[in-house]
Amino acid sequence: MVRKAQIVLSENLQGGKGTLEMHRILQPEELNGHGRLYSMVKMPPHSSIGVHKHIGETEPYYILSGHGTFIDNDGSRIPVGPDDVCLIECGQSHGFENDSDEELTMMALIYNE
Amino acid sequence: MVRKAQIVLSENLQGGKGTLEMHRILQPEELNGHGRLYSMVKMPPHSSIGVHKHIGETEPYYILSGHGTFIDNDGSRIPVGPDDVCLIECGQSHGFENDSDEELTMMALIYNE
Repeated sequence: MVRKAQIVLSENLQGGKGTLEMHRILQPEELNGHGRLYSMVKMPPHSSIGVHKHIGETEPYYILSGHGTFIDNDGSRIPVGPDDVCLIECGQSHGFENDSDEELTMMALIYNE
Repeated sequence: MVRKAQIVLSENLQGGKGTLEMHRILQPEELNGHGRLYSMVKMPPHSSIGVHKHIGETEPYYILSGHGTFIDNDGSRIPVGPDDVCLIECGQSHGFENDSDEELTMMALIYNE
Protein backbone atom coordinates (compact mmCIF):
# COMPACT_ATOMS: atom_id res chain seq x y z
CA MET A 1 0.00 0.00 0.00
CA VAL A 2 1.28 3.45 -0.91
CA ARG A 3 0.23 6.74 0.68
CA LYS A 4 1.70 10.21 1.14
CA ALA A 5 3.43 11.15 4.36
CA GLN A 6 1.14 13.22 6.60
CA ILE A 7 2.38 16.80 6.79
CA VAL A 8 1.95 18.41 10.22
CA LEU A 9 3.19 21.90 11.11
CA SER A 10 4.95 22.17 14.45
CA GLU A 11 5.48 25.62 15.97
CA ASN A 12 8.14 26.32 18.57
CA LEU A 13 8.93 22.65 19.00
CA GLN A 14 10.26 21.97 22.50
CA GLY A 15 10.50 25.73 22.98
CA GLY A 16 12.45 26.23 19.76
CA LYS A 17 12.01 28.92 17.12
CA GLY A 18 9.91 28.97 13.98
CA THR A 19 7.58 26.47 12.32
CA LEU A 20 8.83 23.04 11.31
CA GLU A 21 7.18 20.88 8.66
CA MET A 22 6.93 17.31 9.96
CA HIS A 23 6.30 14.65 7.31
CA ARG A 24 4.92 11.76 9.38
CA ILE A 25 5.93 8.51 7.68
CA LEU A 26 4.30 6.31 10.32
CA GLN A 27 1.63 7.02 12.88
CA PRO A 28 2.70 6.17 16.46
CA GLU A 29 0.59 2.99 16.62
CA GLU A 30 2.13 1.70 13.39
CA LEU A 31 5.48 1.39 15.17
CA ASN A 32 4.04 -1.66 17.00
CA GLY A 33 5.00 -0.36 20.44
CA HIS A 34 8.69 -0.05 19.57
CA GLY A 35 8.66 3.73 19.36
CA ARG A 36 6.43 6.73 18.79
CA LEU A 37 7.75 8.92 15.95
CA TYR A 38 9.19 8.41 12.47
CA SER A 39 9.27 11.60 10.42
CA MET A 40 11.16 13.64 7.88
CA VAL A 41 11.56 17.15 9.26
CA LYS A 42 11.95 20.35 7.20
CA MET A 43 13.52 23.17 9.19
CA PRO A 44 13.42 26.64 7.63
CA PRO A 45 16.42 28.95 8.03
CA HIS A 46 16.96 30.12 11.62
CA SER A 47 14.45 27.70 13.15
CA SER A 48 15.29 25.39 16.04
CA ILE A 49 14.20 22.49 18.23
CA GLY A 50 14.66 23.36 21.90
CA VAL A 51 16.77 21.18 24.18
CA HIS A 52 14.65 18.33 25.58
CA LYS A 53 15.20 15.01 27.36
CA HIS A 54 14.26 11.49 26.18
CA ILE A 55 13.41 9.32 29.17
CA GLY A 56 13.16 5.60 28.34
CA GLU A 57 13.75 6.25 24.66
CA THR A 58 16.23 7.77 22.21
CA GLU A 59 16.05 9.84 19.02
CA PRO A 60 18.80 9.83 16.43
CA TYR A 61 18.73 12.69 13.93
CA TYR A 62 20.05 12.00 10.42
CA ILE A 63 20.82 15.04 8.26
CA LEU A 64 19.60 14.76 4.68
CA SER A 65 20.40 18.25 3.39
CA GLY A 66 21.52 21.63 4.67
CA HIS A 67 23.72 22.61 7.60
CA GLY A 68 22.98 23.28 11.24
CA THR A 69 24.14 22.84 14.83
CA PHE A 70 23.44 19.78 16.99
CA ILE A 71 23.27 20.48 20.71
CA ASP A 72 24.51 17.38 22.48
CA ASN A 73 23.63 16.12 25.97
CA ASP A 74 26.62 17.91 27.53
CA GLY A 75 25.61 21.21 25.93
CA SER A 76 28.34 21.08 23.29
CA ARG A 77 27.43 22.61 19.92
CA ILE A 78 28.47 20.50 16.93
CA PRO A 79 28.23 21.77 13.32
CA VAL A 80 26.57 19.13 11.14
CA GLY A 81 25.68 18.57 7.49
CA PRO A 82 24.47 15.90 5.06
CA ASP A 83 24.97 12.27 6.10
CA ASP A 84 25.75 13.15 9.72
CA VAL A 85 24.10 11.02 12.42
CA CYS A 86 23.42 12.81 15.74
CA LEU A 87 23.11 10.30 18.58
CA ILE A 88 22.11 10.47 22.22
CA GLU A 89 21.76 7.65 24.73
CA CYS A 90 18.40 6.86 26.28
CA GLY A 91 17.67 9.35 29.07
CA GLN A 92 19.86 12.07 27.58
CA SER A 93 18.96 15.50 26.16
CA HIS A 94 19.49 17.17 22.81
CA GLY A 95 18.43 20.11 20.67
CA PHE A 96 18.99 21.35 17.15
CA GLU A 97 19.39 24.69 15.36
CA ASN A 98 19.23 25.50 11.70
CA ASP A 99 21.47 28.54 12.10
CA SER A 100 22.01 28.79 8.33
CA ASP A 101 20.28 30.76 5.58
CA GLU A 102 19.13 27.56 3.80
CA GLU A 103 16.46 24.98 4.59
CA LEU A 104 17.66 21.89 6.46
CA THR A 105 16.01 18.48 6.20
CA MET A 106 16.56 15.58 8.58
CA MET A 107 15.09 12.26 9.62
CA ALA A 108 13.88 11.78 13.19
CA LEU A 109 13.12 8.37 14.73
CA ILE A 110 12.07 7.96 18.37
CA TYR A 111 12.33 4.39 19.67
CA ASN A 112 12.38 2.75 23.06
CA GLU A 113 15.23 1.82 25.38
CA MET B 1 27.79 12.31 19.59
CA VAL B 2 27.97 12.92 15.86
CA ARG B 3 29.33 10.52 13.26
CA LYS B 4 28.91 9.91 9.55
CA ALA B 5 26.53 7.23 8.30
CA GLN B 6 28.43 4.07 7.31
CA ILE B 7 28.33 3.61 3.54
CA VAL B 8 28.03 -0.03 2.44
CA LEU B 9 27.66 -1.12 -1.19
CA SER B 10 25.04 -3.78 -1.82
CA GLU B 11 25.07 -5.67 -5.11
CA ASN B 12 22.02 -7.45 -6.48
CA LEU B 13 20.06 -6.94 -3.27
CA GLN B 14 17.47 -9.69 -2.86
CA GLY B 15 18.23 -10.75 -6.43
CA GLY B 16 17.75 -7.25 -7.79
CA LYS B 17 19.85 -5.39 -10.35
CA GLY B 18 22.82 -3.09 -9.89
CA THR B 19 24.70 -1.78 -6.89
CA LEU B 20 22.92 0.16 -4.17
CA GLU B 21 24.63 2.54 -1.77
CA MET B 22 23.34 1.91 1.75
CA HIS B 23 24.02 4.68 4.26
CA ARG B 24 23.67 2.86 7.59
CA ILE B 25 22.37 5.34 10.15
CA LEU B 26 22.27 2.78 12.97
CA GLN B 27 23.99 -0.54 13.42
CA PRO B 28 21.57 -3.43 14.10
CA GLU B 29 22.43 -3.62 17.82
CA GLU B 30 21.79 0.10 18.25
CA LEU B 31 18.09 -0.51 17.53
CA ASN B 32 17.84 -2.10 21.02
CA GLY B 33 16.20 -5.28 19.71
CA HIS B 34 13.29 -3.42 18.10
CA GLY B 35 14.54 -3.93 14.55
CA ARG B 36 17.61 -4.60 12.46
CA LEU B 37 18.05 -1.93 9.76
CA TYR B 38 17.81 1.85 9.49
CA SER B 39 19.40 3.20 6.33
CA MET B 40 19.20 5.79 3.58
CA VAL B 41 19.41 3.97 0.26
CA LYS B 42 20.72 5.43 -3.01
CA MET B 43 19.49 3.53 -6.05
CA PRO B 44 21.16 4.32 -9.38
CA PRO B 45 19.03 4.44 -12.56
CA HIS B 46 17.68 1.01 -13.57
CA SER B 47 18.66 -0.72 -10.33
CA SER B 48 16.23 -2.76 -8.25
CA ILE B 49 15.58 -4.61 -5.00
CA GLY B 50 14.18 -8.08 -5.69
CA VAL B 51 10.87 -9.19 -4.20
CA HIS B 52 11.42 -10.61 -0.70
CA LYS B 53 9.33 -11.50 2.34
CA HIS B 54 9.52 -10.04 5.87
CA ILE B 55 8.60 -12.70 8.42
CA GLY B 56 8.00 -11.33 11.93
CA GLU B 57 8.92 -7.81 10.85
CA THR B 58 8.02 -5.06 8.40
CA GLU B 59 9.90 -2.50 6.29
CA PRO B 60 8.32 0.74 5.16
CA TYR B 61 10.09 2.56 2.33
CA TYR B 62 9.91 6.36 2.26
CA ILE B 63 10.87 8.06 -1.00
CA LEU B 64 13.10 11.11 -0.58
CA SER B 65 13.88 11.90 -4.22
CA GLY B 66 13.45 10.43 -7.69
CA HIS B 67 10.78 8.18 -9.14
CA GLY B 68 10.39 4.41 -9.26
CA THR B 69 8.00 1.48 -8.96
CA PHE B 70 6.97 -0.20 -5.70
CA ILE B 71 6.06 -3.86 -6.04
CA ASP B 72 3.41 -4.59 -3.42
CA ASN B 73 2.63 -7.89 -1.69
CA ASP B 74 -0.02 -8.79 -4.26
CA GLY B 75 2.40 -8.18 -7.13
CA SER B 76 0.83 -4.87 -8.14
CA ARG B 77 3.25 -2.27 -9.49
CA ILE B 78 2.71 1.23 -8.11
CA PRO B 79 4.54 4.31 -9.47
CA VAL B 80 6.00 6.34 -6.59
CA GLY B 81 7.87 9.59 -6.03
CA PRO B 82 8.98 11.99 -3.30
CA ASP B 83 7.08 11.83 0.01
CA ASP B 84 5.42 8.50 -0.81
CA VAL B 85 5.33 5.88 1.95
CA CYS B 86 5.32 2.23 0.74
CA LEU B 87 3.88 -0.06 3.42
CA ILE B 88 3.58 -3.80 3.85
CA GLU B 89 2.19 -5.74 6.80
CA CYS B 90 4.43 -8.05 8.80
CA GLY B 91 4.87 -11.33 6.91
CA GLN B 92 4.23 -9.78 3.51
CA SER B 93 6.54 -9.35 0.51
CA HIS B 94 7.71 -6.35 -1.48
CA GLY B 95 10.28 -5.22 -4.04
CA PHE B 96 11.35 -1.96 -5.64
CA GLU B 97 12.60 -0.78 -9.03
CA ASN B 98 14.23 2.46 -10.00
CA ASP B 99 13.02 2.20 -13.59
CA SER B 100 13.90 5.84 -14.29
CA ASP B 101 16.98 7.55 -15.74
CA GLU B 102 17.66 9.44 -12.49
CA GLU B 103 18.99 8.39 -9.08
CA LEU B 104 16.36 7.56 -6.48
CA THR B 105 16.89 7.93 -2.73
CA MET B 106 14.73 6.39 -0.03
CA MET B 107 14.67 5.57 3.66
CA ALA B 108 14.40 1.95 4.79
CA LEU B 109 13.53 0.92 8.34
CA ILE B 110 13.10 -2.73 9.35
CA TYR B 111 11.36 -3.22 12.71
CA ASN B 112 9.67 -6.10 14.48
CA GLU B 113 6.05 -7.23 14.54
